[in-house]
Amino acid sequence: MSEPIAFLGNLDADEEAEFLAALAHAMPEETVRPFRTLSEAERSGVGIAIVANPDPAEVAQLPNLAWIQSLWAGVERLVRDLGPGSAPIVRLIDPELARTMAEAVLAWTYYLQRDMPAYRRQQETATWRQLPYRPPGTTTVGLLGLGALGSAAADRLAQAGFRIAAWSRSEKAVAPGVTGFSGPEGLAGLLGVSDIVVCLLPLTPETRGLLDAGQLAAMKPGAGLINFGRGPIVVADALLAALDAGQLSHAVLDVFEVEPLPAESALWRHPGVTVLPHISGPTTPASSAAVVAGNVRAYRASGRIPAAVDRARGY
Amino acid sequence: MSEPIAFLGNLDADEEAEFLAALAHAMPEETVRPFRTLSEAERSGVGIAIVANPDPAEVAQLPNLAWIQSLWAGVERLVRDLGPGSAPIVRLIDPELARTMAEAVLAWTYYLQRDMPAYRRQQETATWRQLPYRPPGTTTVGLLGLGALGSAAADRLAQAGFRIAAWSRSEKAVAPGVTGFSGPEGLAGLLGVSDIVVCLLPLTPETRGLLDAGQLAAMKPGAGLINFGRGPIVVADALLAALDAGQLSHAVLDVFEVEPLPAESALWRHPGVTVLPHISGPTTPASSAAVVAGNVRAYRASGRIPAAVDRARGY
Ligand SMILES: NC(=O)c1ccc[n+]([C@@H]2O[C@H](COP(=O)([O-])OP(=O)(O)OC[C@H]3O[C@@H](n4cnc5c(N)ncnc54)[C@H](OP(=O)(O)O)[C@@H]3O)[C@@H](O)[C@H]2O)c1
Ligand SMILES: NC(=O)c1ccc[n+]([C@@H]2O[C@H](COP(=O)([O-])OP(=O)(O)OC[C@H]3O[C@@H](n4cnc5c(N)ncnc54)[C@H](OP(=O)(O)O)[C@@H]3O)[C@@H](O)[C@H]2O)c1
Repeated sequence: MSEPIAFLGNLDADEEAEFLAALAHAMPEETVRPFRTLSEAERSGVGIAIVANPDPAEVAQLPNLAWIQSLWAGVERLVRDLGPGSAPIVRLIDPELARTMAEAVLAWTYYLQRDMPAYRRQQETATWRQLPYRPPGTTTVGLLGLGALGSAAADRLAQAGFRIAAWSRSEKAVAPGVTGFSGPEGLAGLLGVSDIVVCLLPLTPETRGLLDAGQLAAMKPGAGLINFGRGPIVVADALLAALDAGQLSHAVLDVFEVEPLPAESALWRHPGVTVLPHISGPTTPASSAAVVAGNVRAYRASGRIPAAVDRARGY
Repeated sequence: MSEPIAFLGNLDADEEAEFLAALAHAMPEETVRPFRTLSEAERSGVGIAIVANPDPAEVAQLPNLAWIQSLWAGVERLVRDLGPGSAPIVRLIDPELARTMAEAVLAWTYYLQRDMPAYRRQQETATWRQLPYRPPGTTTVGLLGLGALGSAAADRLAQAGFRIAAWSRSEKAVAPGVTGFSGPEGLAGLLGVSDIVVCLLPLTPETRGLLDAGQLAAMKPGAGLINFGRGPIVVADALLAALDAGQLSHAVLDVFEVEPLPAESALWRHPGVTVLPHISGPTTPASSAAVVAGNVRAYRASGRIPAAVDRARGY
């Protein structure tokens, strides 16, 4: 039998129990034990850690880690907290997350394309007015990020008949009908053609503060913005100014610099902002445990560590 | 050259001009003339009328009508106004309408499934709370009406992974994965299994007042309702009472007993109601003109009147 896998998470007791049960169910051949239950001798035998917002000091007490499996898709905090010297970090690539996130992108794209916020405001004053309908075939959705989540969203939007533009760091082959942009110089191109911009970028040194006053000014007048990536990618004050100026029509935000979003934030109260409490891409412990089990089994069989986060890129 | 086609509509001048231009473009071989421009002799030669909320007294001045083409899909008013003795009425069956309506059904189904109204209310009090996510695979959407629009909506919802129940007057073969119900006795069956009920019924003597207190009580507790059919199918007071009692969670209404919805209506102000100004199924004059041209050409070629409304059924 293999040495135990360590579980380190800043989760409440119910959540921890749920994840441990799901992991036990998904890989009954392994033993996953909370870090606090491991003796010092057991800790030095641990080769794999499964983590959810772990305490870095605890991770440091596992001297023989081969790799670290994150239970989240976004790893910017883990990368920062563990520093460049830690074992390789493997982020969660969960097809169920890609499905729910692509669904959220389509749902909130419809929310903007079908003018739901505007009809909501009209209702407040009992105003009966039909707004011009924009068919998907003449509406361009611009995706910032074309990774696991961005590509799933692109497929879903294409199926619904939207025109699609997509921006990534590296140049890449895109599906027919998708207009591809890449690199810092490609961003203005995407922003200039998109009626609705959807951010599915990871938070890295390059993407922090990316959508600032200058880039928001490069968007189509009256465009909408959906941020499902990470809060600090969008400069909140610049966004509010762009909404006030009518440069943007509406923003749907699921992620924030500080979460939960503090009650005093102006974002809660701006009529042009829809605040969501980080719910766009829900997953279940069962689906993430199944993905983790797949990674662990592949590693046991081959000795090869699953594809890990590139520390220099930050994702 | 054939006799002119009469155009009768209670439209404003711009709308009339737009429809006439679209009809001229779609069937340049025909002459479509507003009723008021026809002499008495010309009127008696008219065999086809194209109508949009026409004055029944004017229709009566066309003694030799073979058939009447409605520019709208819903014909309850025309059927009532023209009476049982008029020429056959052909309603609009427009694939572009079916597409936009199916899109609206999916968009507002997501609105309810993704709890957009509840998050909106939470935002009003700066409340950060993640609500349980219901995947489409465990959410049943119940369609009332499985005609041109209901079937298009069913296809679209199935593609998005929802479970589907559907109710029609006659028993019919349904796609795999759809649970079919029919007849008066089938309604409770559909209402009892549906998390979201979508009404795409025509207004007829049988459907007027159909969703009353009794039927709303047969719905799943906490279910949502979307009415894109006709206003009088849902009893507004009963709906408000069901929302107040928590029996229903939210209603999206696009159609009303009186339109525009009067400013004093309680529907405007109820937090559990989303009021839309009859925008779910927008079409363009171009798309409806193309459908009308197809009907006219088929009739000229064959002498057979296109499938008409059944006066007894009312649709
Ligand atoms: N709101 C939520 O509930 C939620 C849930 C899960 C995840 N997320 C967020 O979504 C993010 C994306 O997830 P994912 O799985 O799709 O990540 P991924 O597979 O790593 O893809 C990231 C994409 O962003 C692009 N990118 C990164 N840095 C860039 C830069 N500087 N300029 C241009 N493009 C850049 C990448 O370009 P290349 O293709 O060239 O590498 C790639 O296309 C996560 O990092 C997380 O923050 C949010
Ligand atoms: N909100 C908007 O913007 C908008 C736009 C266009 C249309 N509409 C409305 O949508 C309605 C439906 O359009 P459609 O083209 O789909 O009509 P349709 O093709 O005639 O289909 C009507 C459907 O309703 C069913 N039905 C009728 N009476 C019934 C009853 N008493 N019990 C059970 N089922 C019954 C029919 O059953 P069978 O299949 O057995 O005949 C059929 O499935 C129109 O009449 C119009 O009022 C609204």
